[in-house]
Amino acid sequence: MSTELLLYDYWRSSACYRVRIALNLKGLGCTLRPVHLLKDGGEQHADAYRERNPQEVVPTLVDGQLVVRQSLAIIEYLDETRPLQPLLPPVPRDRAHVRGLAQLVACDIHPLNNLRVMHYLDRELGVAQDARERWTRHWMEEGFRAFEAILAADAAPGEFCHGDTPGLADACLVPQVYNANRFGVDLAPYPMIRAINERCLALPAFEAASPERQAGAA
Amino acid sequence: MSTELLLYDYWRSSACYRVRIALNLKGLGCTLRPVHLLKDGGEQHADAYRERNPQEVVPTLVDGQLVVRQSLAIIEYLDETRPLQPLLPPVPRDRAHVRGLAQLVACDIHPLNNLRVMHYLDRELGVAQDARERWTRHWMEEGFRAFEAILAADAAPGEFCHGDTPGLADACLVPQVYNANRFGVDLAPYPMIRAINERCLALPAFEAASPERQAGAA
Repeated sequence: MSTELLLYDYWRSSACYRVRIALNLKGLGCTLRPVHLLKDGGEQHADAYRERNPQEVVPTLVDGQLVVRQSLAIIEYLDETRPLQPLLPPVPRDRAHVRGLAQLVACDIHPLNNLRVMHYLDRELGVAQDARERWTRHWMEEGFRAFEAILAADAAPGEFCHGDTPGLADACLVPQVYNANRFGVDLAPYPMIRAINERCLALPAFEAASPERQAGAA
Repeated sequence: MSTELLLYDYWRSSACYRVRIALNLKGLGCTLRPVHLLKDGGEQHADAYRERNPQEVVPTLVDGQLVVRQSLAIIEYLDETRPLQPLLPPVPRDRAHVRGLAQLVACDIHPLNNLRVMHYLDRELGVAQDARERWTRHWMEEGFRAFEAILAADAAPGEFCHGDTPGLADACLVPQVYNANRFGVDLAPYPMIRAINERCLALPAFEAASPERQAGAA
């Protein structure tokens, strides 16, 4: 597994941010190639990129001849092919817990709030900006309430989402908290989420992955 | 792994339908306990269920003392703990392909079209029924276009989404096609999706999991 990794990336994309965290936690070198989602009508719609990713979304990982799409699939692929610094625990029951938390974010919060959805609400449904922002906050608050309750019910809580090592669930949570802050979500009701987020942001792997640290950040 | 499996289930839920398919493909017995999403303001909001699933959504799998949430996490858990009739291929690059397809459905199509989102569009944003149905079709058509393109680019196409055995990606695709048919999506542009869907529906594992075959189907 010595091929060079290439990630098609956008600094503000929550899904890309997850993958950058995962790469850093695993200590993997990777070339980041920016795909600007807003410039020139969206570089993700260009023919050359569409061939890599017919969904015209980021991220896309290229590993030699292999193209991997979808942030969680990318992270699991990295974890399976580069097993050092695992992002998933070894036992199935713990893996299920971590995947459940990751998917709570990746399937039930983030898809409702990304750029293409905001565009549709605006351009096709004529939803005003304040109502779009309420929509965004609503799904984050619903998701965080459940995420916090699951953390609180954990019989063996640790420093991070699972145990004392950051992993897949943390790589999903931190970008979502970043988005929540952008949209003014009140995080007071979620003390465990806040504490985990703070511990993560204090780590170089998370800090170096943050949107503002990326090339092209506005 | 001899504990009895219990699945909190709703006949029309696309995410539950995926898990039922997975259970059947693996030949696993499981008690299905219906949670009616529309009756009495939604049984998923009842206190007893919320303890199992703070997100107040279905499905939830119970295996002895363990509670697993999120359909893809449930299916991977079943596959890891009951390895006969695997739903994911053995090689990481193939697993990445299958997970990418599954997540295209589970992260980028279905979350935009489920009941809680339809309710919000209706009750909070006042989006009329025809516009809600256009919204639903839009995300399915966008997703299917990409799904079809990825299948068409597969260097080693088989009878199903990956190879000649149905697995995780098929368990996600078939319920999404079922939804597409409910909402009148024209499937003519997606011949590979249609062919795979037909092959799946001809199998007893898929047939027995179909919404209309479940207890409580209206």
